[in-house]
Amino acid sequence: MDMDGTRTMAAPVVAGPLDPEQLHRIHAWWRAANYLSVGEIYLMDNPLLREPLRPEHVKPRLLGHWGTTPGLNFVYAHLNRCITQRDLDMIYVMGPGHGGPGPVAAAWLEGTYSEVYADVSQDTAGLKKLFTQFSFPGGIPSHVAPETPGSIHEGGELGYALSHAYGAAFDNPRLIVAAVVGDGEAETGPLATSWHSNKFLDPQRDGAVLPILHLNGYKIASPTVLARIEPEELDQLLRGYGYVPHLVEGSDPERMHQDFAATIDRCLDEVARIQRRARHDGVTERPHWPMIVLRTPKGWTGPKEVDGLKVEGSWRSHQVPFSNARGDDAHRAVLEQWMRSYRPEELFDESGAPVPEIRDLHPMGDRRMSANPHANGGVLLRDLRMPDFRDYAVPVESPGTGAVESTRVLGTFLRDVMRRNMTNFRVLAPDENNSNRLGAILEATERTWEARMQPDDVGLGVDGRLMEILSEHTCQGWLEGYLLTGRHGFFSCYEAFIHIVDSMFNQHAKWLKTTEGIEWRRPIASLNYLLSSHVWRQDHNGFSHQDPGFIDHVVNKKADVIRVYLPPDANTLLSTVDHCLRSKQYVNVIVAGKQPQLQYLDMDDAIVHCTKGIGIWDWASTDAGVEPDVVLGCAGDIPTMETLAAAEILRGWFPDLRVRVVNVVDLMRLQSEREHPHGLSDREFDALFTTDRPVIFAYHGYPWLIHRLTYRRTNHDQMHVRGYLEEGTTTTPFDMCVLNRIDRFDLAIDVIDRVPRLQGISAHRREELRNKLIEHRHYVRTHGEDLPEVRDWQWSAVPGPNTPAENPQATAL
Amino acid sequence: MDMDGTRTMAAPVVAGPLDPEQLHRIHAWWRAANYLSVGEIYLMDNPLLREPLRPEHVKPRLLGHWGTTPGLNFVYAHLNRCITQRDLDMIYVMGPGHGGPGPVAAAWLEGTYSEVYADVSQDTAGLKKLFTQFSFPGGIPSHVAPETPGSIHEGGELGYALSHAYGAAFDNPRLIVAAVVGDGEAETGPLATSWHSNKFLDPQRDGAVLPILHLNGYKIASPTVLARIEPEELDQLLRGYGYVPHLVEGSDPERMHQDFAATIDRCLDEVARIQRRARHDGVTERPHWPMIVLRTPKGWTGPKEVDGLKVEGSWRSHQVPFSNARGDDAHRAVLEQWMRSYRPEELFDESGAPVPEIRDLHPMGDRRMSANPHANGGVLLRDLRMPDFRDYAVPVESPGTGAVESTRVLGTFLRDVMRRNMTNFRVLAPDENNSNRLGAILEATERTWEARMQPDDVGLGVDGRLMEILSEHTCQGWLEGYLLTGRHGFFSCYEAFIHIVDSMFNQHAKWLKTTEGIEWRRPIASLNYLLSSHVWRQDHNGFSHQDPGFIDHVVNKKADVIRVYLPPDANTLLSTVDHCLRSKQYVNVIVAGKQPQLQYLDMDDAIVHCTKGIGIWDWASTDAGVEPDVVLGCAGDIPTMETLAAAEILRGWFPDLRVRVVNVVDLMRLQSEREHPHGLSDREFDALFTTDRPVIFAYHGYPWLIHRLTYRRTNHDQMHVRGYLEEGTTTTPFDMCVLNRIDRFDLAIDVIDRVPRLQGISAHRREELRNKLIEHRHYVRTHGEDLPEVRDWQWSAVPGPNTPAENPQATAL
Repeated sequence: MDMDGTRTMAAPVVAGPLDPEQLHRIHAWWRAANYLSVGEIYLMDNPLLREPLRPEHVKPRLLGHWGTTPGLNFVYAHLNRCITQRDLDMIYVMGPGHGGPGPVAAAWLEGTYSEVYADVSQDTAGLKKLFTQFSFPGGIPSHVAPETPGSIHEGGELGYALSHAYGAAFDNPRLIVAAVVGDGEAETGPLATSWHSNKFLDPQRDGAVLPILHLNGYKIASPTVLARIEPEELDQLLRGYGYVPHLVEGSDPERMHQDFAATIDRCLDEVARIQRRARHDGVTERPHWPMIVLRTPKGWTGPKEVDGLKVEGSWRSHQVPFSNARGDDAHRAVLEQWMRSYRPEELFDESGAPVPEIRDLHPMGDRRMSANPHANGGVLLRDLRMPDFRDYAVPVESPGTGAVESTRVLGTFLRDVMRRNMTNFRVLAPDENNSNRLGAILEATERTWEARMQPDDVGLGVDGRLMEILSEHTCQGWLEGYLLTGRHGFFSCYEAFIHIVDSMFNQHAKWLKTTEGIEWRRPIASLNYLLSSHVWRQDHNGFSHQDPGFIDHVVNKKADVIRVYLPPDANTLLSTVDHCLRSKQYVNVIVAGKQPQLQYLDMDDAIVHCTKGIGIWDWASTDAGVEPDVVLGCAGDIPTMETLAAAEILRGWFPDLRVRVVNVVDLMRLQSEREHPHGLSDREFDALFTTDRPVIFAYHGYPWLIHRLTYRRTNHDQMHVRGYLEEGTTTTPFDMCVLNRIDRFDLAIDVIDRVPRLQGISAHRREELRNKLIEHRHYVRTHGEDLPEVRDWQWSAVPGPNTPAENPQATAL
Repeated sequence: MDMDGTRTMAAPVVAGPLDPEQLHRIHAWWRAANYLSVGEIYLMDNPLLREPLRPEHVKPRLLGHWGTTPGLNFVYAHLNRCITQRDLDMIYVMGPGHGGPGPVAAAWLEGTYSEVYADVSQDTAGLKKLFTQFSFPGGIPSHVAPETPGSIHEGGELGYALSHAYGAAFDNPRLIVAAVVGDGEAETGPLATSWHSNKFLDPQRDGAVLPILHLNGYKIASPTVLARIEPEELDQLLRGYGYVPHLVEGSDPERMHQDFAATIDRCLDEVARIQRRARHDGVTERPHWPMIVLRTPKGWTGPKEVDGLKVEGSWRSHQVPFSNARGDDAHRAVLEQWMRSYRPEELFDESGAPVPEIRDLHPMGDRRMSANPHANGGVLLRDLRMPDFRDYAVPVESPGTGAVESTRVLGTFLRDVMRRNMTNFRVLAPDENNSNRLGAILEATERTWEARMQPDDVGLGVDGRLMEILSEHTCQGWLEGYLLTGRHGFFSCYEAFIHIVDSMFNQHAKWLKTTEGIEWRRPIASLNYLLSSHVWRQDHNGFSHQDPGFIDHVVNKKADVIRVYLPPDANTLLSTVDHCLRSKQYVNVIVAGKQPQLQYLDMDDAIVHCTKGIGIWDWASTDAGVEPDVVLGCAGDIPTMETLAAAEILRGWFPDLRVRVVNVVDLMRLQSEREHPHGLSDREFDALFTTDRPVIFAYHGYPWLIHRLTYRRTNHDQMHVRGYLEEGTTTTPFDMCVLNRIDRFDLAIDVIDRVPRLQGISAHRREELRNKLIEHRHYVRTHGEDLPEVRDWQWSAVPGPNTPAENPQATAL
């Protein structure tokens, strides 16, 4: 095994910007970080190898990823030099987040780790703990994780390094975000498009991102695409993405130190020049930002061969390069030789602390990347300055009147939130902001646009704050990066296509859940989704655009961090969004339609209703203080309208029937208080839904979710839920309801079929009533647009509680 | 309004490959397609404008997308010329699938539409129907859809045009897939990485893909990134992706016809040359395939201005360029002028059929892109030649013994499926094939790899059939394209990260559901997922890799098309996969671990069990033909092991207790027969789970899914489900179970707490028993690796029903 790659570099033989002292120090720091990284993966005792390595020093089970780690450490060492020399405010996003041993080692070397985890001290005992805890039961994860100081990026799921990095850089003009993109990660779709983020970064107002494409050549088991296309192709690709790539390639550490130092100096000079031109010379054309291509062996400085097979420079070093170091003497000898090749005796003092020359390399205080406050965004978080949402109220003469696009009203509120928070609030959408009727935001700002503009363009600006790219992944990644560094945001999306970021939501929710348990992490602003253009109103687009399942996906995550709201009209939507924008540490999902729709509650009532999250709508109910015969539950704007219309039909037909209408804004109220902090107690739930009366519940999404949320409730057996059943196409809004049996007539039929009092009437009579409703349903479905009471073709957008119903059966009882 | 862009072209004034007759015909065909497209969006009567346009001829509600359509039609016309001239076998993937009016018009012009929908005949009555039905209640979707002859690509959700196109081209050496990529779509992540598919296409064995990047400059409301970077950047980007781009730019139809014709000829010549070199000259190096960049105005040939605002060449033409053609005389005049500018009187004969010169342009029979059998893959589908899966059986001496990696066994079966089907079967994984233990496939084939190879590479081949790119999106897109064109495939993925393609699964499931109702569409092979590296065994990777929610996502789709299997060991896995590979029109989700685990059933028993999908495991039960005291249900390999271990503990402690163990392989058996074709009747369900005894159910995923599937069952109130609760980190497998309360000890505690017979013992005694179990749980959790009966640290991978249990309480009852 040849380890001379890590030899001492007292006398530099390669030209470059580093003087011998700098070179020596950087190399020592890198050796230390690599040594610690190997130790984290392999050892549980004898951390400084002060005695020969014995089986019991080695962990019984070896878990971790070595391959990418030395590269991450190499970059870290060099960034530290630059931070110190240039007094930079810098954070480091590591795309290959499985290289967890690296940043943990760095944070320990910088002292941050011991500051936040006192028992992992900078001494031999702390080192033993540092090693043992890594990827160990009760210890820390093997990936870069919320537990890792200095991280805003988990990296377990690959693809989001660049969008996170850009999100962090927006509105942080002094910040530089160094972002390593692994060549495995670079094959993912989200990463492949996120290079284009440079068309959305304003060099005047925003900070800088320095991408470092790390080509170590291999994924888990294969070469990577970008490492195996021709070098000129790669160069063209990156220039095509709008960057000026600088290649640093090799494996000889001394040469690589000098080359990388020279290159990063050149890049940082270029960043400074670009920012100066934008900030002082008024240049507005899009710059071609520098980036680095770093080509090194995978598992660099690790064993070159084990058992006759190539390890360094191969996919075999991806995880643990050899796994039997505890049981196999030869493997253990390889490990010991490998670790000793870093010469720990030069790196750590008698007590186990890093020697001064290593300590001196890293910056001090908040300038340490592991302690940079941007990477613990909560400490920088300032509350939004909020306008009074009540000022945007829609007047509601009487419940169930008007035809208002609720999200358009919301747009005016968001516009003014934007106006008051022009440095820490962004609104994002995948080309759907105006389609979702949030166009008023453009009165306060423009769309971010650094690419070429034309004279006839409208609403584009280099310093625009409405961010639109047709990539849900990029929007989500930007927003996460923005939130994690202590700012606020709002993401609107077509309901069906938010599934595109299901897995990104997962990771963010997991991050939030984990940080709840980490004392030194401060709460960040919530991630707010508005899902519009929803399942019931896909008149344009049909079946492919119909999927209300994101809610189901979201509620699988920890109740502590997720909230779901279905405001039925504009005033409840305003109240809900105001609440969400003030909240922290949640993912808030708000579903609201963009089409003209009936309004129900004036602002005072809306506030009361949203505060409770669920409630009886007395004005729509006929149970007047007594136990109802049936409860009509509803959640979502369209189901609410259909429910109210059904109640109206029933009121006309059966004046004696006691109907209670319960509307749900905060979906989590349905769950038990034991399951979710917003959950109703069983007593409260029973007071609304009774313990034994039929409940016909019309729900916005897949009906089984309501069962799932309520299956432990007293009256669950009596709950009959209607919702979306994957029936749909391009059709009228009313027909969509009929196809999925959630329309007013079907809901009325449900009542007729299930209410005991009505079952007193003969089967024949019931059949007659049912047929009458079916007939009426058919008539509206086919002639809706010609009914006199209907304003144009958008039948169900207008009528509601006041829907006319013949009253032929009023005396039926 | 200036419409001279569509003027007659009798005498060509621009040089190019088209002679006057060809030019005239192509232009006429394009005019006809554009005319029909506008008619589809706007009209419901007077289809040939044989009388002045009146309000009642215009649809009351206008829905559809014009902007992209003329470009799609333009390409269609030119492809038709090439197909005819060169006798090409070609299909057409339209990324901007919202341009649905185009391909519908084309299919009608080619006669295919009337062949498959007899009432939409090639005459005036048919035309009226063609127009009226478009995006109309009871009609057809506004997007390219399964209903559209010639389509394998919906395009409602953007991003998959190229991966679908490549999937179609694999193993179809004579096929050319023309694929239009919209510049909106091009911003998505999945599309951005799918350009790299050219590193996985073998010019010898596979067909060709001809990408056409259509820059019409605008999305719904903004310019597009690729249209607004510098032309040289775009050129570099596409060359960096490995293509040779050919630009065709302009708006003058005559010039554009000649330029596009010349360019497509050049590209097809180059495709032929590449294929010849690979197939006859033995050249194996990766070619640089040609592609076209087509830059035209959005809404080309539409009105230039309406109400003083620019429409052609602007985002305003994205959908319906002006919307009040029914109510507003001026708008209606614009519409009429626009449609008449195509001169329909020259395009359609008296009867309403296309005139001969238009008919003559298109190819005949199967060569018509709208009738190409590859776009209705079921007609080409051949069953797989299957080895006998029983030959791969793992011997099982007695239930609950051994330590077998089930997926490794599966690998040998898949290897031999591959060997027998080397032209119509592909296996895909996002760099996880070997990690998922399917490495045996590499004995039959190599990894597909057209990029550069190095001497030390192993397992790569230009004609490899195992497809690995670190992009779940690309794997899924390739597979969909491959299946939709009539072949078979198998996709293995880490369980957590299959969420990355949640939305792609949605669209494929919707496609399958829709095609069920389309008579001329033939069934295609099922999409088979193996989800491994699952939630319970993320020892390496921890919390970010733990998410069993894909099942929840899947079961939201129509029961007709989805199946979910949780085989608990190798033989059940073999039987399941054999079944899935033979099936059609489903999405099959199979979840199975890759770690060494206990085996339970020999092959005969496994077949019986899988055929039933659910059953009592007598050998693990102690209810011997009588009603049990408690039912232990389980689904999934780890929950099954823990359940059996719990049964063993209970057997030791309470020899009299009648415990029934029910294992579920086919999850849909739990649902009612009314909800899912695989569902058990209530009688069958009650026979297994009783009507009143406690059921402790240990489930692989989120526990509420079991409630959702069973909430209407008689005994649902007695069902207590354990599953994954989003508790996890990097820890031992056993600790994962404990964190989520699904371990053997907690299951045993559940029984003690809930079984009435045991409740006869005193509260104090119960507390003692509970504490004993908790103590034991703690002991195993902390010392598991040192227990004598445990082979190495992987505690829970080995023991099972034979887990030792102290029997201190055996006399407790």
